[in-house]
Amino acid sequence: MPLDDIERLIQLLSRLPGLGPRSARRAALHLMERRESLMQPLAGALSKAAAAIRDCSLCGNLDTKDPCGICQDEKRDSGLICVVEEVGDLWALERSGAFNGRYHVLGGTLSAIDGRGPEQLRIDALVGRVNAAPLNTAPVREVILALSATVDGQTTAHYLKDRLAHCDVEVSHLAHGVPVGGELDYLDDGTLSAALKARRPY
Amino acid sequence: MPLDDIERLIQLLSRLPGLGPRSARRAALHLMERRESLMQPLAGALSKAAAAIRDCSLCGNLDTKDPCGICQDEKRDSGLICVVEEVGDLWALERSGAFNGRYHVLGGTLSAIDGRGPEQLRIDALVGRVNAAPLNTAPVREVILALSATVDGQTTAHYLKDRLAHCDVEVSHLAHGVPVGGELDYLDDGTLSAALKARRPY
Repeated sequence: MPLDDIERLIQLLSRLPGLGPRSARRAALHLMERRESLMQPLAGALSKAAAAIRDCSLCGNLDTKDPCGICQDEKRDSGLICVVEEVGDLWALERSGAFNGRYHVLGGTLSAIDGRGPEQLRIDALVGRVNAAPLNTAPVREVILALSATVDGQTTAHYLKDRLAHCDVEVSHLAHGVPVGGELDYLDDGTLSAALKARRPY
Repeated sequence: MPLDDIERLIQLLSRLPGLGPRSARRAALHLMERRESLMQPLAGALSKAAAAIRDCSLCGNLDTKDPCGICQDEKRDSGLICVVEEVGDLWALERSGAFNGRYHVLGGTLSAIDGRGPEQLRIDALVGRVNAAPLNTAPVREVILALSATVDGQTTAHYLKDRLAHCDVEVSHLAHGVPVGGELDYLDDGTLSAALKARRPY
């Protein structure tokens, strides 16, 4: 029978994405059966990370140092800024290994429904970075908008394009098209027509 | 970009049931974005629980005291012992609120494939409790085998029935039948024929 301490643990675990009340209970039990090998190390790793991690004041990334490792890395191209919605998107791009510039995390998208306006996002900071690049020797020459292909994501992209119109910087966005490994039969019409319009010589 | 501390956290989170490497990364990010409100409380709850929880030396339940709350509760019928495989099964029975006796957690089932014999399970302790009930005034009059309706579970039930044959105790098992809310059309043949054989007067 779960007691107060255990109930509290289950309740906290159930707030993790991907764990509902039932799977949180299963996870708690799993941990309680592995107190030495998993529960204590996890508690240690959590409290260590909670104490060490901070928001990068330049780009909004999460890291144990500020500015973050990416902003401090001199081998990365400081003339390229890739704008993403969330830190998770930044991680995804880093995993792809396809980008060697800097990032800027907005902290979400504009959203009429959720009442999120430009002042809630890190947009002024982006414009500031473009106009007077901090920590960079080279000026910013291109801003890549890597935002979701959703209504809110594209609204935000349009807004950013307008805001950056008077800056001396190129603004680009990710290509739309057929995902690698994707079968045409399963693709939605919007993606198919975007891929057709953006067709490239073979 | 995940660093060493973050990588370690992700790796530990991915060992929870229900979280794979991808969802562990998402959970870590979710935690890192809520350091004050979720990450630190979770670290505290984990380390508190890891320090406080112990195995009940009587029944094998997990609790912050030994003997556990159920074994110490004098309002529960000490003449009834419900044998379960895992602590999770005990929690499930407690949630049902249908049982007011004591429990005995075996710690698994006999399994030829996994090489688990009787000596790896808490079977001797069960026989000992039945023969000389500790902490109980009343002797044990019934042992309910609440084991899984799987081959291993039923093998274990048969083995326990044999081991308890010479004790002055009734041995019962859970009823097989149609789950409440279950539709006949979706039931397997084994359950249907068990439910038919065990039919009861209306």
